[in-house]
Amino acid sequence: MDIETAKKELLALQRKLAAYGHAIGLIYYDGETTAPKDTAENRAVSLSVLTEEIYRLSTSDETVKLLEFLDKNKDELDKKERRMVFLMLRDIREMQKIPMDEYVAYQELVVRAEDAWHRAKEESDFEMFRPYLEQLFATQKKFAAYAAPEKDPYDYCLNKFEEGVTKEILDEFFGKLKAGIVPLLKKVTAKPQVDDSIRFGKFSDAAQEKFAYFLMKTMGLDLGHVGLSTTEHPFTTSLGSHNDERITTHYHEDDFVSSMYSVIHEGGHALYDTGSAPDLAYTVLDGGTTMGIHESQSRFYENILGRNRAFCKFLFPHLNEFFPGEFDGYTAEDFYRAVNKAQPSLIRTEADELTYALHVMVRYELEKKVFAGEIEVKDLPQQWNALYKEYLGIDVPDDKRGLLQDSHWSSGLIGYFPSYALGSAYGAQFIAKMRETVDVDKCLENGDFAPINDWNREHIWKYGSLFTPAEVLDNALGVPFDAQYFIDYLTEKYTEIYDL
Amino acid sequence: MDIETAKKELLALQRKLAAYGHAIGLIYYDGETTAPKDTAENRAVSLSVLTEEIYRLSTSDETVKLLEFLDKNKDELDKKERRMVFLMLRDIREMQKIPMDEYVAYQELVVRAEDAWHRAKEESDFEMFRPYLEQLFATQKKFAAYAAPEKDPYDYCLNKFEEGVTKEILDEFFGKLKAGIVPLLKKVTAKPQVDDSIRFGKFSDAAQEKFAYFLMKTMGLDLGHVGLSTTEHPFTTSLGSHNDERITTHYHEDDFVSSMYSVIHEGGHALYDTGSAPDLAYTVLDGGTTMGIHESQSRFYENILGRNRAFCKFLFPHLNEFFPGEFDGYTAEDFYRAVNKAQPSLIRTEADELTYALHVMVRYELEKKVFAGEIEVKDLPQQWNALYKEYLGIDVPDDKRGLLQDSHWSSGLIGYFPSYALGSAYGAQFIAKMRETVDVDKCLENGDFAPINDWNREHIWKYGSLFTPAEVLDNALGVPFDAQYFIDYLTEKYTEIYDL
Repeated sequence: MDIETAKKELLALQRKLAAYGHAIGLIYYDGETTAPKDTAENRAVSLSVLTEEIYRLSTSDETVKLLEFLDKNKDELDKKERRMVFLMLRDIREMQKIPMDEYVAYQELVVRAEDAWHRAKEESDFEMFRPYLEQLFATQKKFAAYAAPEKDPYDYCLNKFEEGVTKEILDEFFGKLKAGIVPLLKKVTAKPQVDDSIRFGKFSDAAQEKFAYFLMKTMGLDLGHVGLSTTEHPFTTSLGSHNDERITTHYHEDDFVSSMYSVIHEGGHALYDTGSAPDLAYTVLDGGTTMGIHESQSRFYENILGRNRAFCKFLFPHLNEFFPGEFDGYTAEDFYRAVNKAQPSLIRTEADELTYALHVMVRYELEKKVFAGEIEVKDLPQQWNALYKEYLGIDVPDDKRGLLQDSHWSSGLIGYFPSYALGSAYGAQFIAKMRETVDVDKCLENGDFAPINDWNREHIWKYGSLFTPAEVLDNALGVPFDAQYFIDYLTEKYTEIYDL
Repeated sequence: MDIETAKKELLALQRKLAAYGHAIGLIYYDGETTAPKDTAENRAVSLSVLTEEIYRLSTSDETVKLLEFLDKNKDELDKKERRMVFLMLRDIREMQKIPMDEYVAYQELVVRAEDAWHRAKEESDFEMFRPYLEQLFATQKKFAAYAAPEKDPYDYCLNKFEEGVTKEILDEFFGKLKAGIVPLLKKVTAKPQVDDSIRFGKFSDAAQEKFAYFLMKTMGLDLGHVGLSTTEHPFTTSLGSHNDERITTHYHEDDFVSSMYSVIHEGGHALYDTGSAPDLAYTVLDGGTTMGIHESQSRFYENILGRNRAFCKFLFPHLNEFFPGEFDGYTAEDFYRAVNKAQPSLIRTEADELTYALHVMVRYELEKKVFAGEIEVKDLPQQWNALYKEYLGIDVPDDKRGLLQDSHWSSGLIGYFPSYALGSAYGAQFIAKMRETVDVDKCLENGDFAPINDWNREHIWKYGSLFTPAEVLDNALGVPFDAQYFIDYLTEKYTEIYDL
């Protein structure tokens, strides 16, 4: 084999994998947005076939030979090609350690588990979901042991979402957050609560949808390449390449703020994905590098920008265009304060910036304990409720608003949650750096996201998965990650709002 | 190879093909319903990869050997297995004659052509679509010559949609229809026109959607397995198997009747598909046998049932539930007459039962002439308009309402249109037979579709693709197909409505 042919084959192989990814991603997306309710069986059957095809393609002698040849000749590869070969070989070597039938069975399990989760959540009945969740945890543990027997199995899971992260690192990280957040929250709750009545009223789905498109346009999304659908639990996905991106939301008729921030959050993911350099399309480098960095972008747009006072000021007059008459007697400042009301609550996705990390910690602790064998899956509801009491001081009334609230576990995304807290913290450090060269508040007050997006594109987005999270942070910041930025950001913000 | 193993492999192979079909069908469906507008490129890339995979799988030595082995031992196969082997071998032998790169390039062409058609239709600019349509016709001709050099190429295209049909048969069929319909239409147009003002008003998308679901439930569709979406040009598709069926519609704010009948039409397709016996799922026998029989069901529900007086009587009081106040002063009889107003018009899908076949004839004549080399693609707009003048006596104001109105050609469905007219005629013969044992009018007056659906299920649906169209007709009717039933049906219906 000569090197030029091998490089061409490397691109052709990734194009093939991208097409399978498109098909599989679309089947999931369809299941979560459009599919009639009793059709999960069909999706399970088709996904098992397509997953088997991917497994065969990825682990075939031809593929492995190609990648090993390129790996051996890595001096003749550019940085992008080296990273492609590294990522693919890493994943394939892990895949090869998992027996194909188990690998395929797992994909089927996920479809059935998602279906069971939807039904269980509707009925607020954990028992309907329990057998699936047990299998999901058991399979993840088994796969971790196959793929990386030298590693702690939960560390292995964490690494799938944030390269380089371990329990040790997270324990320290969350310890620091807790030490910063808990006393701050205590001070906040001792103060008179802000009035958030502005967010409640009657907001039709149609009006909220129009508002959602306005937000998408304002934040700089290209609507020719980014679509919006509705779903139970909002998420974002790329289909085939970053040129086809889908975000999703969920409308609450009595509260427009919920969908508003889910749109901005998912829009942040979409900006990151669609910001990949054009030549990354149809390669494994396309889209964001890890979930931690991904969440740093989504939560950056949702909170640091979306819950910024200047942005609320920009947005307020527009609210009346979409929901006429709903905000009579309120001011932009009322709006800003309402969307920054901090209080212990039940639902993670609806939580304010201050308490959010506590919701994540609950999930992290529980995953860690299940992996360590300290608790069993059947104990999760009771343990969940106990931790909500301990960390947030509140009683969980039912599983629907308890551990059935998130879709992640049903999709097999165990180890994902810490990415949200890491992302929030990365974001606080990014904004500090960005403010050195961009007048962020002025941009937001004008609804002009271009300078902000340009900074993110230049420092983060355009590289896709070329860099590890540590490299991304280093590129953008020039100094190592420091959680103190996040604590300072929260302290400053809530001290001002609550006059602490 | 032993026969039992081979039979199992036959099922596994079909399951694989069904999964690829699911992926490809969903990518198309997504493109027509949900995808952002500038994402056709991604779909083209992914479809070309997936089509190549299907081509490789279908024409592999392993597959061909398996099917030939089963074909040689067909005495040991049951009827279903024999039909599976026959259909698959037939398609694969044709596929093998088409070079893979041309086969794959064609699938990409279709995606781009669909995209170009949407844009061309929006601008009413045939030139934007012309280069694609030229390539589509040229490729179809070339493929026909590859696959069946012994056949007339247009006959080959026709056969893809209605097994056993030729130009000769259709010339006779359409000649008969023309002889029956044209004089009848003349008599109708000489009479005072019926008042169809009842259909016009203001009907929100949301209300029309609710009404659509009511219609779907009424006609006996299982909403757990049949979904509804919106699109430019309504169509129906199965995803993976008949257990996941999607219909689509298009809402016009000023006229609720348009979407209503598209829902019933597509619902008829969905009833047929979802009526396949459960064990046909994930096999090539799943779903309807040919487009002619398929259209016999869709047009049966749309027209013979949907535009029946008893059904209009049942429906009328319900209309007020969905569109309150819109029908004050009207009667069920007004509704019946309005939806049966017969007059030459521009748009096929909106045409009444009487003139509908004339719209089809225009398309049939044009396809035939392009294939015969008598006209070129660039002449189509002018030829289209001339035939509308000749057959329907009307002037076509623009290409949007002329030859850009249908999506079929852009999807490569050349030879499809005659199925609509054949289906309409089959349906007239089915209803005559059904009335021997089912009190159709009483069922419709009660909104009770069960006895009607049972008849169709027992005689047609449950067999999927087990039989040829001729066999389906013979099974259900016991006598050969006779177009006279359709002419008699139309004559009786319109004589009564227009008091001829």
